[in-house]
Amino acid sequence: MSLLDAPLVVASNRGPVTFERNERGELEARRGSGGLVTALLGAMQQVGGLWIAAASSDADRELAGAANGGLVDMAPFGGDYRVRLLDVEPDRYDAYYNRISNGILWFAHHSLWDTVHQPVFDDETERAWHEYVAVNRQFAEALAEEADRSVEPPAFLIQDYHLTLVPRLLRELRPDASIARFSHTAIAGRTYLRSRPGRIREGVLRGMLGADVLGFHSQLWAENFLMSARSLPGVRADLARSRLIVEGREVVVRIHPISIDASGLREAAAAPEVAALRRELNRWRGDARLILRVDRLELSKNIVRGFQAYALFLRTHPEWRHRVRFLVLLSPSRMDLPEYRTYGEECVAEAELVNREFGDEEWQPVEVRVKDDYIGAVAAYGISDVLLVNPIYDGMNLVAMEGPLLNRRGGVLVLSRNAGAYWRLGKHALAVNPFDLRETADAIFRALEMPREERVRRARGLSRLVWSNPPERWVRTQLEDLERARLRRRIG
Amino acid sequence: MSLLDAPLVVASNRGPVTFERNERGELEARRGSGGLVTALLGAMQQVGGLWIAAASSDADRELAGAANGGLVDMAPFGGDYRVRLLDVEPDRYDAYYNRISNGILWFAHHSLWDTVHQPVFDDETERAWHEYVAVNRQFAEALAEEADRSVEPPAFLIQDYHLTLVPRLLRELRPDASIARFSHTAIAGRTYLRSRPGRIREGVLRGMLGADVLGFHSQLWAENFLMSARSLPGVRADLARSRLIVEGREVVVRIHPISIDASGLREAAAAPEVAALRRELNRWRGDARLILRVDRLELSKNIVRGFQAYALFLRTHPEWRHRVRFLVLLSPSRMDLPEYRTYGEECVAEAELVNREFGDEEWQPVEVRVKDDYIGAVAAYGISDVLLVNPIYDGMNLVAMEGPLLNRRGGVLVLSRNAGAYWRLGKHALAVNPFDLRETADAIFRALEMPREERVRRARGLSRLVWSNPPERWVRTQLEDLERARLRRRIG
Repeated sequence: MSLLDAPLVVASNRGPVTFERNERGELEARRGSGGLVTALLGAMQQVGGLWIAAASSDADRELAGAANGGLVDMAPFGGDYRVRLLDVEPDRYDAYYNRISNGILWFAHHSLWDTVHQPVFDDETERAWHEYVAVNRQFAEALAEEADRSVEPPAFLIQDYHLTLVPRLLRELRPDASIARFSHTAIAGRTYLRSRPGRIREGVLRGMLGADVLGFHSQLWAENFLMSARSLPGVRADLARSRLIVEGREVVVRIHPISIDASGLREAAAAPEVAALRRELNRWRGDARLILRVDRLELSKNIVRGFQAYALFLRTHPEWRHRVRFLVLLSPSRMDLPEYRTYGEECVAEAELVNREFGDEEWQPVEVRVKDDYIGAVAAYGISDVLLVNPIYDGMNLVAMEGPLLNRRGGVLVLSRNAGAYWRLGKHALAVNPFDLRETADAIFRALEMPREERVRRARGLSRLVWSNPPERWVRTQLEDLERARLRRRIG
Repeated sequence: MSLLDAPLVVASNRGPVTFERNERGELEARRGSGGLVTALLGAMQQVGGLWIAAASSDADRELAGAANGGLVDMAPFGGDYRVRLLDVEPDRYDAYYNRISNGILWFAHHSLWDTVHQPVFDDETERAWHEYVAVNRQFAEALAEEADRSVEPPAFLIQDYHLTLVPRLLRELRPDASIARFSHTAIAGRTYLRSRPGRIREGVLRGMLGADVLGFHSQLWAENFLMSARSLPGVRADLARSRLIVEGREVVVRIHPISIDASGLREAAAAPEVAALRRELNRWRGDARLILRVDRLELSKNIVRGFQAYALFLRTHPEWRHRVRFLVLLSPSRMDLPEYRTYGEECVAEAELVNREFGDEEWQPVEVRVKDDYIGAVAAYGISDVLLVNPIYDGMNLVAMEGPLLNRRGGVLVLSRNAGAYWRLGKHALAVNPFDLRETADAIFRALEMPREERVRRARGLSRLVWSNPPERWVRTQLEDLERARLRRRIG
C-alpha cells in the first residue's frame, strides 16, 4: 500500500482541538483554525489516523490521565479521527516549552538575541534541556505505540521546533518508520546557530535527521539547514540534489510552502458579526485610508520599527496627515517570557510617541488594540488599504495571505524580504528590508499613492497565488516525498 | 615578470606608520606592530612598493595636504618603501569610519546587533553610505594613479572592511589590475547579512568581487562569503573549487590564516622593562595562579560573560578561592561609539560584582586595568597559567597566538570555537562555546587542574603552530594566488 493511502499519525505540541467542559459539565472540543489543522485533519478524515499532542486545558489533562493513555475518539465530536493527549508534568512542560522551545530555539532561529548580552547558558539550560529531551521521548514512545497498533504502516508527520528530537527517537524505536518532519519557523544560518550549546545544536540537528523527509517553507531555510547539517561528523551532503546521507540513510530536504484555508476563511468572513465589525471599523476610519497590521505580540514581528517607519512616513509626507490611520491589532503571546512582556510595553510606548508627535484633537494617527480578536482581524482585512507585514525573520507569515484573500479594496501588501511568504508572494507585494525605516516609509507612501489599476492587478495576483496552493497540497506533496523515499529505500 | 617580484601596493585604513612631530619639530614615524604590518612591510622592502592609508594624526594630515598628494618616501625614516597618506575630510571620515565601517559592517559581521531593537536604518544611514563610497573612491583613485606611475604592473593588496568597494572601483579604473583583497573580520552568514540595507549589502559584495583573489582567515568565513555572493544576480558559484564567476571574470576564494610576528614579539618580550613589569606582576599575584585576558574593550570579545563564567567557576569550586586571580587587561577602543562606552561600564560593573561576591580583605578575585598597555600585556603573557580568549565571533584573534608564544609556565589556552584562531589552534586549546558559562567555567577549572605534562604538551603544540606560519607566508601565498589568477586570465 502506498503511503498516500496509509493512516496518518501527526505529532505537534498543540493539538487540532482543545477540550473544555461546558456549564452542564459535558466535554466540548474547540477546533483550532489555520492551514495546518485544516490540511492535516482533512487528509486524516479520509484515510483515518491519530493526532498526538500535549494536553493544554484542564479538560485535556483530565482526558490525558485516563486509563487508555489519553486516546480520544473524535466521532462523538463530529470527526472521523482520533486524538491522543499526553500528560506532561507542569514543571517539565515549562522547561520544554518556555525555556528551550520558545526561550532558545525560537530566538536562535529568528536571530533575536542581543548577542552581546544574550544568550547566557548555564546549569539551568542543561536541566531544561533534559526535560525537553524527556518530553520529546514521551511523544516518540506514543508514536511508536501507534505504529504497533496500526494494521498498515502509517505515515508519521512531525511538526515544528518543539519536537525536533522526535524523528530520531522514533527511528531508534521503529527503524522502518516513514517519517516526515516539517519546520514552520525560519532557520538561521550555521554561523548564528553556533551560539547554541554544542549538545543542543547537535541534538537538534541529529534529531531532525532521523526523518526521511525534512520540509521547510522556503529555499533559504532549507539551504541553511543543509549547510548546518553537513558540518556534522558522519553526515554527507549532496547539495545539488538537496539530500543528506546519514549513517548510510538518505534524508531529503524539500520546500513545501504552507498556505491558508482559503475557503474556511472566506466563510468566516461572511458571518454577520464580521459585517457588523466591518461597519464599525468603517465608521471609525471615516474618510481616512487604513493601514493595517495584524500580528501576535511577538519579538520577531518587528512591531516597534513598524511604528517608527510610519512616523518617518508622516514626517516626510505631511500632506498625508489626517488622511490616514494605522490600526494595529496585536494578540498577546508568550506572556510567560519576560522579554515578551517588556516588548509589549515598548510597542505601546512607541505608538504613543507617534500619536504625541503627530496627533491632535481631531486625529490620532495610530490605534493599538492588544487582545485576542480573530474576528476583528478578519473584519479589518476586508477594508484596509495597506497591510504592513515587516517581520525581522518569519518562517512563512500567514497574515500576508489572509489579508489579500479577504481584502475588497485592492489593498497593497508591504512585505518583509525576510518572511517565508516573500518567496511566494514577493512579486505582487512592495518588498522591504525590515530594518530599513526609509525603505518601509517609502513603501507605505508608494502603496497609498499607487494607481488603482496597479493596486488591483497586484491584489488579484496575491489572491490567485493564495487560492492556487490549497493546504491539501501541502500534505499531499509531503506524503509523495515520503512514498518516494520508501520506494528508494526498498530498492536500495 | 611574475607578480611575486612585482611592486606591492597596499591599501588599508590605518597605515603602517603614524607620523608625529617631536619637541624639536622634526617628523618622526611610529611603526605599528602586528603580523599584518610586519608581513607586508617585509615583502615591500624587498620588491619596493607603496602603502596607501588615511591620514590619522595631525602630522599625517599635514603630509597628506602637501602638493605631491601625500606621498612620503620612507628612506629618511629607515624604510625602503613609500607611504601615501590620504586627506579625508573629518565629517566624511566620521561617516565612513564610525557609522558605516564600525557601526554597521563590524556589527553585521560579528552578529552583534540586538536585532529586536537594532539596527535601525534611515536617511542618516544613506548619507553615511555615500561618504563611505566617496572614501573608497578616493582610495581607488590613488591606487589607479600608482598603477600608472609603476613601470611594472603592481600587485594590489586591499585590506579589510573599511575598503570593501575598492576592488571594484579600482577594476573599473584599471580593468587589468591584479587585485587581492583580504577580510580580517569574521563573516556572518547570508541570512544574518540580509539585515543590511540592500544597497549596502549588494554594494559590499559586488565591491569585493572586483578582486581576483579574496582571502579569509577560516573556512567558515570563506564559505559564508561564497554563499552570500552566489545569491547575487549574475554571479555563478563553483563551491567545490571555491570560486565565483562574475560577468565572465573568475574570482577565487582562499583561506590564508594570518599569524603574528613571532620573532619581533619575542624580541619585545626580552626588553628589561618587560622583565621589571613581570616581576611586579609576580609580586602582585603572590602564590595564586593567574588567569589572564588581554583584549581591546570590544563588544565582540565577550568580556562580561568572561567574568560571569569566572564567577560560576568560583561558585562551583570554593576550594579555588584565594588560590587564583583573574587579571583583565583592556585597551580602550572605538570610544566614539556610544555602545562601546556603555559596554566598558558594564564590564567594570560585572568585575565589581565578582569581587563583591567572593572577595575579602585579603583577596580580590578580579583586577581590571583599562588602558593602552601593550608592554604590560607582553609581561603578563609570560607568567599566566590560563589565558581566556572567548570572543562571540572573531575573524582570527592574535591574543590566542601571542600568549602561548611568550608563556613560560605551560599556560593553558581556553579558546572560543567562534574565533578564526580555533580552526588553527583548537586541538591544543580547551575549546568553549562563548555563550555557555558552564562550559567556560569547566574549562577554567580543567585548565587549572591539568597535569603539568599535558599542559606542557599543549603549550608546545600551540607555540609550534605559531612559529610554523610566519607572516611572510601569509603575503606569499596571496601573491601566488594572484599570479595563478593572472596566468589563468592570460590563457583564458
